[in-house]
Amino acid sequence: MRATREEALKNQLVFLLELDRLKSVLRQSSLANGSRRENSAEHSWHLAMFALVLSEHADVQVNAAHAAKLLLVHDTVEIDAGDAPIHASGVSKSELEPAEHHAAERIFGLLPIEQAGQFRDMWLEFEAGQSPEARFAKALDRFQPLLLNIAVGGGTWKENGVTELQVIERYGPAIKGGSATLWNAALKLVQAHFND
Amino acid sequence: MRATREEALKNQLVFLLELDRLKSVLRQSSLANGSRRENSAEHSWHLAMFALVLSEHADVQVNAAHAAKLLLVHDTVEIDAGDAPIHASGVSKSELEPAEHHAAERIFGLLPIEQAGQFRDMWLEFEAGQSPEARFAKALDRFQPLLLNIAVGGGTWKENGVTELQVIERYGPAIKGGSATLWNAALKLVQAHFND
Repeated sequence: MRATREEALKNQLVFLLELDRLKSVLRQSSLANGSRRENSAEHSWHLAMFALVLSEHADVQVNAAHAAKLLLVHDTVEIDAGDAPIHASGVSKSELEPAEHHAAERIFGLLPIEQAGQFRDMWLEFEAGQSPEARFAKALDRFQPLLLNIAVGGGTWKENGVTELQVIERYGPAIKGGSATLWNAALKLVQAHFND
Repeated sequence: MRATREEALKNQLVFLLELDRLKSVLRQSSLANGSRRENSAEHSWHLAMFALVLSEHADVQVNAAHAAKLLLVHDTVEIDAGDAPIHASGVSKSELEPAEHHAAERIFGLLPIEQAGQFRDMWLEFEAGQSPEARFAKALDRFQPLLLNIAVGGGTWKENGVTELQVIERYGPAIKGGSATLWNAALKLVQAHFND
Protein backbone atom coordinates (compact mmCIF):
# COMPACT_ATOMS: atom_id res chain seq x y z
CA MET A 1 0.00 0.00 0.00
CA ARG A 2 1.36 3.38 -0.99
CA ALA A 3 1.89 5.78 1.90
CA THR A 4 -0.26 8.89 1.84
CA ARG A 5 1.45 12.13 0.95
CA GLU A 6 1.22 13.26 4.58
CA GLU A 7 2.88 10.08 5.88
CA ALA A 8 5.58 10.42 3.22
CA LEU A 9 6.34 13.97 4.34
CA LYS A 10 6.50 12.90 7.97
CA ASN A 11 9.08 10.22 7.14
CA GLN A 12 11.04 12.61 4.94
CA LEU A 13 11.32 15.11 7.78
CA VAL A 14 12.57 12.40 10.15
CA PHE A 15 15.25 11.55 7.57
CA LEU A 16 16.23 15.21 7.05
CA LEU A 17 16.58 15.81 10.78
CA GLU A 18 18.65 12.63 11.10
CA LEU A 19 20.99 14.02 8.41
CA ASP A 20 21.77 16.92 10.75
CA ARG A 21 24.04 14.51 12.65
CA LEU A 22 26.52 14.47 9.74
CA LYS A 23 27.51 18.01 10.83
CA SER A 24 29.00 16.44 13.97
CA VAL A 25 31.10 13.77 12.20
CA LEU A 26 34.66 15.11 12.17
CA ARG A 27 37.16 14.28 9.44
CA GLN A 28 40.95 14.26 9.71
CA SER A 29 41.51 17.25 7.38
CA SER A 30 41.54 20.82 8.63
CA LEU A 31 39.83 23.76 7.04
CA ALA A 32 42.07 25.68 4.61
CA ASN A 33 42.74 28.27 7.35
CA GLY A 34 43.81 25.57 9.81
CA SER A 35 41.32 26.76 12.46
CA ARG A 36 39.66 23.39 13.10
CA ARG A 37 38.90 20.00 11.56
CA GLU A 38 36.36 19.73 8.77
CA ASN A 39 33.06 17.95 9.30
CA SER A 40 31.50 15.58 6.78
CA ALA A 41 28.48 17.80 6.02
CA GLU A 42 30.48 20.88 4.99
CA HIS A 43 32.94 18.55 3.20
CA SER A 44 30.00 17.20 1.16
CA TRP A 45 28.92 20.74 0.26
CA HIS A 46 32.45 21.64 -0.80
CA LEU A 47 32.69 18.52 -2.96
CA ALA A 48 29.37 19.23 -4.67
CA MET A 49 30.76 22.66 -5.58
CA PHE A 50 33.94 20.98 -6.89
CA ALA A 51 31.71 18.85 -9.14
CA LEU A 52 29.80 21.86 -10.50
CA VAL A 53 33.00 23.84 -11.12
CA LEU A 54 35.41 21.16 -12.41
CA SER A 55 33.27 18.81 -14.52
CA GLU A 56 34.91 19.96 -17.77
CA HIS A 57 38.12 18.27 -16.59
CA ALA A 58 36.62 14.78 -16.26
CA ASP A 59 38.22 12.25 -18.63
CA VAL A 60 34.81 11.09 -19.81
CA GLN A 61 31.93 13.54 -20.21
CA VAL A 62 29.89 13.66 -17.00
CA ASN A 63 26.58 15.11 -15.90
CA ALA A 64 27.87 17.61 -13.31
CA ALA A 65 24.55 17.79 -11.43
CA HIS A 66 24.47 14.00 -11.09
CA ALA A 67 28.07 13.90 -9.82
CA ALA A 68 27.12 16.64 -7.32
CA LYS A 69 24.14 14.55 -6.14
CA LEU A 70 26.37 11.51 -5.57
CA LEU A 71 28.72 13.69 -3.51
CA LEU A 72 25.88 15.20 -1.46
CA VAL A 73 24.81 11.68 -0.51
CA HIS A 74 28.14 9.79 -0.37
CA ASP A 75 29.04 10.36 3.31
CA THR A 76 25.57 9.90 4.81
CA VAL A 77 26.48 6.45 6.14
CA GLU A 78 29.13 8.06 8.38
CA ILE A 79 26.31 9.13 10.71
CA ASP A 80 26.39 5.53 11.97
CA ALA A 81 29.71 4.17 10.69
CA GLY A 82 32.00 7.18 11.28
CA ASP A 83 34.63 8.61 8.96
CA ALA A 84 37.38 6.22 7.83
CA PRO A 85 40.62 8.24 7.55
CA ILE A 86 42.86 7.56 4.54
CA HIS A 87 46.03 7.48 6.67
CA ALA A 88 46.63 5.06 9.55
CA SER A 89 43.26 3.76 10.62
CA GLY A 90 42.59 0.95 13.06
CA VAL A 91 39.48 -0.03 11.09
CA SER A 92 39.92 -2.54 8.27
CA LYS A 93 37.94 -2.41 5.03
CA SER A 94 36.34 -5.77 5.86
CA GLU A 95 34.97 -4.36 9.13
CA LEU A 96 33.92 -1.05 7.63
CA GLU A 97 31.96 -2.27 4.62
CA PRO A 98 29.27 -4.20 6.52
CA ALA A 99 28.91 -1.27 8.96
CA GLU A 100 28.40 1.13 6.06
CA HIS A 101 25.87 -1.11 4.34
CA HIS A 102 23.99 -1.50 7.59
CA ALA A 103 24.02 2.29 8.01
CA ALA A 104 22.70 2.79 4.48
CA GLU A 105 19.82 0.40 5.18
CA ARG A 106 18.89 2.15 8.39
CA ILE A 107 19.32 5.79 7.34
CA PHE A 108 17.92 5.70 3.78
CA GLY A 109 15.27 3.32 5.15
CA LEU A 110 13.78 6.24 7.07
CA LEU A 111 12.50 7.58 3.73
CA PRO A 112 9.32 6.41 1.95
CA ILE A 113 10.14 3.06 0.34
CA GLU A 114 10.54 4.16 -3.29
CA GLN A 115 12.68 7.16 -2.37
CA ALA A 116 14.73 5.03 0.03
CA GLY A 117 15.63 2.86 -2.95
CA GLN A 118 16.66 5.90 -5.04
CA PHE A 119 18.99 7.21 -2.34
CA ARG A 120 20.45 3.78 -1.63
CA ASP A 121 21.11 3.42 -5.36
CA MET A 122 22.95 6.78 -5.47
CA TRP A 123 25.12 5.69 -2.56
CA LEU A 124 25.79 2.28 -4.16
CA GLU A 125 26.61 3.98 -7.48
CA PHE A 126 29.20 6.13 -5.72
CA GLU A 127 30.64 3.19 -3.80
CA ALA A 128 30.92 1.00 -6.90
CA GLY A 129 32.83 3.79 -8.69
CA GLN A 130 31.90 2.44 -12.12
CA SER A 131 29.74 5.11 -13.76
CA PRO A 132 31.52 8.17 -15.21
CA GLU A 133 29.94 10.37 -12.52
CA ALA A 134 30.95 8.03 -9.69
CA ARG A 135 34.53 7.84 -10.98
CA PHE A 136 34.69 11.62 -11.18
CA ALA A 137 33.07 12.00 -7.76
CA LYS A 138 35.61 9.62 -6.22
CA ALA A 139 38.42 11.60 -7.84
CA LEU A 140 37.11 14.82 -6.24
CA ASP A 141 36.72 13.09 -2.87
CA ARG A 142 40.52 12.57 -2.90
CA PHE A 143 41.44 15.81 -4.66
CA GLN A 144 39.75 18.13 -2.15
CA PRO A 145 41.56 16.91 1.01
CA LEU A 146 44.83 16.97 -0.96
CA LEU A 147 44.25 20.68 -1.68
CA LEU A 148 43.32 21.37 1.96
CA ASN A 149 46.42 19.56 3.24
CA ILE A 150 48.63 21.66 0.97
CA ALA A 151 46.79 24.85 2.00
CA VAL A 152 47.66 24.22 5.67
CA GLY A 153 51.28 23.28 4.93
CA GLY A 154 50.98 19.50 5.29
CA GLY A 155 48.04 18.81 7.62
CA THR A 156 47.29 15.10 8.01
CA TRP A 157 50.45 14.23 6.05
CA LYS A 158 52.67 15.89 8.66
CA GLU A 159 50.61 14.49 11.55
CA ASN A 160 50.95 10.95 10.20
CA GLY A 161 54.49 11.18 8.80
CA VAL A 162 53.21 10.51 5.28
CA THR A 163 55.85 10.69 2.53
CA GLU A 164 55.58 12.08 -1.01
CA LEU A 165 55.50 8.53 -2.38
CA GLN A 166 52.70 7.53 0.02
CA VAL A 167 50.67 10.58 -1.01
CA ILE A 168 51.09 9.61 -4.66
CA GLU A 169 50.10 6.01 -3.92
CA ARG A 170 47.11 6.86 -1.73
CA TYR A 171 45.58 9.74 -3.72
CA GLY A 172 46.81 8.96 -7.24
CA PRO A 173 44.65 5.98 -8.27
CA ALA A 174 41.31 7.58 -7.35
CA ILE A 175 42.14 10.99 -8.85
CA LYS A 176 43.64 9.49 -12.02
CA GLY A 177 40.59 7.22 -12.26
CA GLY A 178 38.39 10.27 -12.92
CA SER A 179 40.59 12.95 -14.39
CA ALA A 180 44.12 12.92 -15.82
CA THR A 181 44.03 16.75 -15.85
CA LEU A 182 43.30 16.98 -12.12
CA TRP A 183 45.94 14.38 -11.33
CA ASN A 184 48.56 16.28 -13.34
CA ALA A 185 47.72 19.45 -11.41
CA ALA A 186 47.68 17.58 -8.08
CA LEU A 187 51.03 15.91 -8.77
CA LYS A 188 52.68 19.28 -9.44
CA LEU A 189 51.29 20.66 -6.18
CA VAL A 190 52.42 17.58 -4.24
CA GLN A 191 55.93 17.72 -5.72
CA ALA A 192 56.23 21.43 -4.96
CA HIS A 193 54.96 20.82 -1.41
CA PHE A 194 57.47 18.09 -0.61
CA ASN A 195 60.46 19.58 -2.43
CA ASP A 196 60.30 23.32 -1.87
CA MET B 1 40.95 35.79 -25.73
CA ARG B 2 39.84 32.48 -24.26
CA ALA B 3 41.89 31.27 -21.30
CA THR B 4 43.79 28.04 -21.79
CA ARG B 5 42.50 24.98 -19.98
CA GLU B 6 45.40 25.16 -17.55
CA GLU B 7 44.72 28.81 -16.68
CA ALA B 8 41.02 27.98 -16.27
CA LEU B 9 41.84 25.21 -13.80
CA LYS B 10 44.17 27.48 -11.84
CA ASN B 11 41.40 30.07 -11.44
CA GLN B 12 38.83 27.39 -10.56
CA LEU B 13 41.07 26.10 -7.76
CA VAL B 14 41.49 29.63 -6.37
CA PHE B 15 37.68 29.92 -6.32
CA LEU B 16 37.20 26.51 -4.67
CA LEU B 17 39.74 27.30 -1.93
CA GLU B 18 38.06 30.67 -1.37
CA LEU B 19 34.75 28.81 -0.87
CA ASP B 20 36.32 27.06 2.13
CA ARG B 21 35.76 30.28 4.07
CA LEU B 22 31.98 29.68 4.05
CA LYS B 23 32.62 26.94 6.65
CA SER B 24 33.59 29.72 9.08
CA VAL B 25 30.49 31.89 8.57
CA LEU B 26 28.23 31.20 11.55
CA ARG B 27 24.46 31.40 11.39
CA GLN B 28 22.07 32.08 14.25
CA SER B 29 20.47 28.61 14.27
CA SER B 30 21.88 25.74 16.29
CA LEU B 31 22.37 22.19 15.11
CA ALA B 32 19.40 19.94 15.89
CA ASN B 33 21.30 18.55 18.93
CA GLY B 34 21.91 22.07 20.27
CA SER B 35 25.69 21.53 20.52
CA ARG B 36 26.77 24.61 18.55
CA ARG B 37 25.66 27.10 15.91
CA GLU B 38 25.37 26.00 12.30
CA ASN B 39 27.74 27.32 9.65
CA SER B 40 26.64 28.40 6.19
CA ALA B 41 28.51 25.62 4.34
CA GLU B 42 26.88 22.73 6.20
CA HIS B 43 23.55 24.63 6.05
CA SER B 44 23.89 24.74 2.25
CA TRP B 45 24.54 20.98 2.14
CA HIS B 46 21.51 20.34 4.33
CA LEU B 47 19.32 22.50 2.12
CA ALA B 48 20.48 20.76 -1.05
CA MET B 49 19.41 17.48 0.57
CA PHE B 50 16.04 19.07 1.45
CA ALA B 51 15.64 19.92 -2.25
CA LEU B 52 16.43 16.37 -3.40
CA VAL B 53 14.10 14.82 -0.82
CA LEU B 54 11.12 17.22 -0.80
CA SER B 55 10.73 18.34 -4.43
CA GLU B 56 7.46 16.40 -4.85
CA HIS B 57 5.85 18.86 -2.42
CA ALA B 58 6.58 21.98 -4.50
CA ASP B 59 3.40 23.74 -5.67
CA VAL B 60 4.71 23.90 -9.22
CA GLN B 61 6.77 21.05 -10.68
CA VAL B 62 10.47 21.72 -10.13
CA ASN B 63 13.74 20.25 -11.32
CA ALA B 64 15.09 19.04 -7.97
CA ALA B 65 18.73 19.02 -9.11
CA HIS B 66 18.44 22.62 -10.27
CA ALA B 67 16.88 23.70 -6.97
CA ALA B 68 19.74 21.88 -5.18
CA LYS B 69 22.30 23.77 -7.30
CA LEU B 70 20.71 27.12 -6.41
CA LEU B 71 20.92 26.17 -2.73
CA LEU B 72 24.55 25.05 -2.98
CA VAL B 73 25.41 28.48 -4.39
CA HIS B 74 22.96 30.77 -2.57
CA ASP B 75 25.04 31.66 0.51
CA THR B 76 28.42 32.07 -1.22
CA VAL B 77 28.21 35.87 -0.94
CA GLU B 78 28.24 35.55 2.87
CA ILE B 79 32.00 34.95 2.64
CA ASP B 80 32.29 38.72 2.24
CA ALA B 81 28.89 40.03 3.34
CA GLY B 82 28.20 37.80 6.38
CA ASP B 83 24.95 36.10 7.34
CA ALA B 84 21.90 38.33 7.80
CA PRO B 85 19.79 36.87 10.63
CA ILE B 86 16.03 36.81 10.14
CA HIS B 87 15.35 38.11 13.68
CA ALA B 88 16.59 41.44 15.02
CA SER B 89 19.45 42.50 12.82
CA GLY B 90 21.25 45.83 12.87
CA VAL B 91 21.83 45.56 9.13
CA SER B 92 19.13 46.98 6.85
CA LYS B 93 18.21 45.44 3.51
CA SER B 94 19.38 48.58 1.72
CA GLU B 95 22.86 48.20 3.21
CA LEU B 96 23.04 44.45 2.69
CA GLU B 97 22.04 44.25 -0.97
CA PRO B 98 24.94 46.29 -2.39
CA ALA B 99 27.37 44.37 -0.14
CA GLU B 100 26.03 41.07 -1.44
CA HIS B 101 26.18 42.16 -5.08
CA HIS B 102 29.73 43.36 -4.57
CA ALA B 103 30.59 40.00 -2.99
CA ALA B 104 29.05 38.11 -5.92
CA GLU B 105 31.15 40.13 -8.37
CA ARG B 106 34.36 39.47 -6.47
CA ILE B 107 33.86 35.81 -5.55
CA PHE B 108 32.27 34.45 -8.74
CA GLY B 109 34.69 36.73 -10.63
CA LEU B 110 37.53 34.45 -9.51
CA LEU B 111 36.22 31.86 -12.00
CA PRO B 112 36.92 31.83 -15.75
CA ILE B 113 34.71 34.51 -17.30
CA GLU B 114 32.03 32.27 -18.86
CA GLN B 115 31.67 30.16 -15.74
CA ALA B 116 31.67 33.27 -13.54
CA GLY B 117 28.58 34.38 -15.47
CA GLN B 118 26.86 31.01 -14.97
CA PHE B 119 27.40 31.08 -11.20
CA ARG B 120 26.40 34.74 -10.92
CA ASP B 121 23.23 33.87 -12.84
CA MET B 122 22.41 31.04 -10.44
CA TRP B 123 22.82 33.36 -7.49
CA LEU B 124 20.70 36.06 -9.16
CA GLU B 125 18.03 33.48 -10.01
CA PHE B 126 17.84 32.49 -6.34
CA GLU B 127 17.79 36.11 -5.16
CA ALA B 128 15.03 37.08 -7.61
CA GLY B 129 12.88 34.19 -6.39
CA GLN B 130 10.85 34.12 -9.59
CA SER B 131 11.58 30.74 -11.22
CA PRO B 132 9.78 27.67 -9.77
CA GLU B 133 13.12 26.32 -8.52
CA ALA B 134 14.09 29.62 -6.87
CA ARG B 135 10.70 29.90 -5.15
CA PHE B 136 11.02 26.36 -3.87
CA ALA B 137 14.64 26.93 -2.80
CA LYS B 138 13.63 30.06 -0.88
CA ALA B 139 10.86 28.10 0.83
CA LEU B 140 13.38 25.48 1.98
CA ASP B 141 15.80 28.17 3.17
CA ARG B 142 13.10 29.22 5.67
CA PHE B 143 11.70 25.76 6.37
CA GLN B 144 15.02 24.21 7.49
CA PRO B 145 15.84 26.72 10.30
CA LEU B 146 12.21 26.48 11.46
CA LEU B 147 12.65 22.71 11.88
CA LEU B 148 16.00 23.19 13.67
CA ASN B 149 14.50 25.77 16.04
CA ILE B 150 11.70 23.40 16.95
CA ALA B 151 14.18 20.52 17.38
CA VAL B 152 16.10 22.50 20.03
CA GLY B 153 12.96 23.66 21.83
CA GLY B 154 12.85 27.22 20.52
CA GLY B 155 16.41 28.25 19.64
CA THR B 156 16.62 31.70 18.05
CA TRP B 157 12.93 32.30 18.82
CA LYS B 158 13.52 31.98 22.56
CA GLU B 159 16.79 33.98 22.37
CA ASN B 160 15.05 36.83 20.56
CA GLY B 161 11.65 36.68 22.31
CA VAL B 162 9.92 35.89 19.03
CA THR B 163 6.19 35.17 19.29
CA GLU B 164 4.08 32.63 17.43
CA LEU B 165 2.62 35.44 15.30
CA GLN B 166 6.06 36.75 14.43
CA VAL B 167 7.20 33.27 13.39
CA ILE B 168 4.15 32.97 11.14
CA GLU B 169 4.80 36.42 9.64
CA ARG B 170 8.55 35.92 9.13
CA TYR B 171 8.60 32.35 7.83
CA GLY B 172 5.16 32.03 6.28
CA PRO B 173 5.44 34.10 3.09
CA ALA B 174 8.63 32.44 1.80
CA ILE B 175 7.51 28.89 2.66
CA LYS B 176 3.98 29.43 1.28
CA GLY B 177 5.56 30.95 -1.83
CA GLY B 178 7.07 27.57 -2.73
CA SER B 179 4.88 24.92 -1.14
CA ALA B 180 1.45 24.99 0.48
CA THR B 181 2.09 21.43 1.73
CA LEU B 182 5.29 22.38 3.56
CA TRP B 183 3.66 25.47 5.02
CA ASN B 184 0.72 23.42 6.34
CA ALA B 185 3.16 21.03 8.01
CA ALA B 186 5.27 23.90 9.36
CA LEU B 187 2.24 25.71 10.76
CA LYS B 188 1.13 22.62 12.68
CA LEU B 189 4.62 22.25 14.16
CA VAL B 190 4.77 25.94 15.09
CA GLN B 191 1.34 25.83 16.73
CA ALA B 192 2.25 22.71 18.69
CA HIS B 193 5.56 24.30 19.76
CA PHE B 194 3.98 27.48 21.09
CA ASN B 195 0.90 25.92 22.61
CA ASP B 196 2.01 22.62 24.14
